[in-house]
Amino acid sequence: MIMKTLRKLIDKLGKEKLTLACAESASGGYVSYLLTKIPGSSRIFRGSIVVYSLEAKTKFFKIPPAILRQTQGVSRKITSLLARRVKNILNTDVGAALTGFAGPAGKNVGQVFLSVSYRNKTSVKKVMIKGSRDKVRKEASMILIEMIYNQVGAGHARPVKK
Amino acid sequence: MIMKTLRKLIDKLGKEKLTLACAESASGGYVSYLLTKIPGSSRIFRGSIVVYSLEAKTKFFKIPPAILRQTQGVSRKITSLLARRVKNILNTDVGAALTGFAGPAGKNVGQVFLSVSYRNKTSVKKVMIKGSRDKVRKEASMILIEMIYNQVGAGHARPVKK
Repeated sequence: MIMKTLRKLIDKLGKEKLTLACAESASGGYVSYLLTKIPGSSRIFRGSIVVYSLEAKTKFFKIPPAILRQTQGVSRKITSLLARRVKNILNTDVGAALTGFAGPAGKNVGQVFLSVSYRNKTSVKKVMIKGSRDKVRKEASMILIEMIYNQVGAGHARPVKK
Repeated sequence: MIMKTLRKLIDKLGKEKLTLACAESASGGYVSYLLTKIPGSSRIFRGSIVVYSLEAKTKFFKIPPAILRQTQGVSRKITSLLARRVKNILNTDVGAALTGFAGPAGKNVGQVFLSVSYRNKTSVKKVMIKGSRDKVRKEASMILIEMIYNQVGAGHARPVKK
């Protein structure tokens, strides 16, 4: 199922000559691994920054440490900043980002924020995923892939003539 | 099996208070995904740069485009540069890098370079892996994990008294 969506996404981006970059926290690189499962993805996917520490979020994305500490680096605002800025850093058309708490211990386990930035629109979504650390990370990554596909698709949809 | 090695690696780095960063090309983020499977890995693993394009290799690692084009971004020298420089970029004790040709089409499919930089030593290894694109990427990632473990372990080994 995910392979089908991935192929559709890579196809669509290829046809539209759009490039993509990601910023990943909780998923630790899994979104990028999925995207690059598809041969030919290198024409579209420029790269990713896996920010698995507050230091990395500050270093690459200039997010002030005070804001990161308040939220442990996981919030709606931080995720949308990551999506917007990774697009600029890697000079791509589309930016996607994911932050969250994969667990197994701690507060808010399963809470994940996803963001896609394309043209002037940056969307953010909050999801709650039940299950193991690995399940949270994998499911969240797949939801982000769907979200990229839907947003880029919608951006090019033509209005239906009545 | 890989989970056991991962736990040993995260434990060892934790005990030695060492931090780790990666630069990944062909593996597309899979090394980082593996490292972050282990709860508590965030104390050790700072982050990764997934350089899935020549542009990204130039942007983050200042590797001249001419050198990248000659080799398609895959060589012993480039991989060791990635390992050394990612350590500096993310300010970690250990840097690890992977470049290669995962296929399925093209020349040199299955050829992967792996590098680990720790203290004054940067090692590089070339491996040939037979099998599907996914198999090449996963196996290469696991070999890199082993390599990090061995090199960091060796760096702290005490000579046996005779």
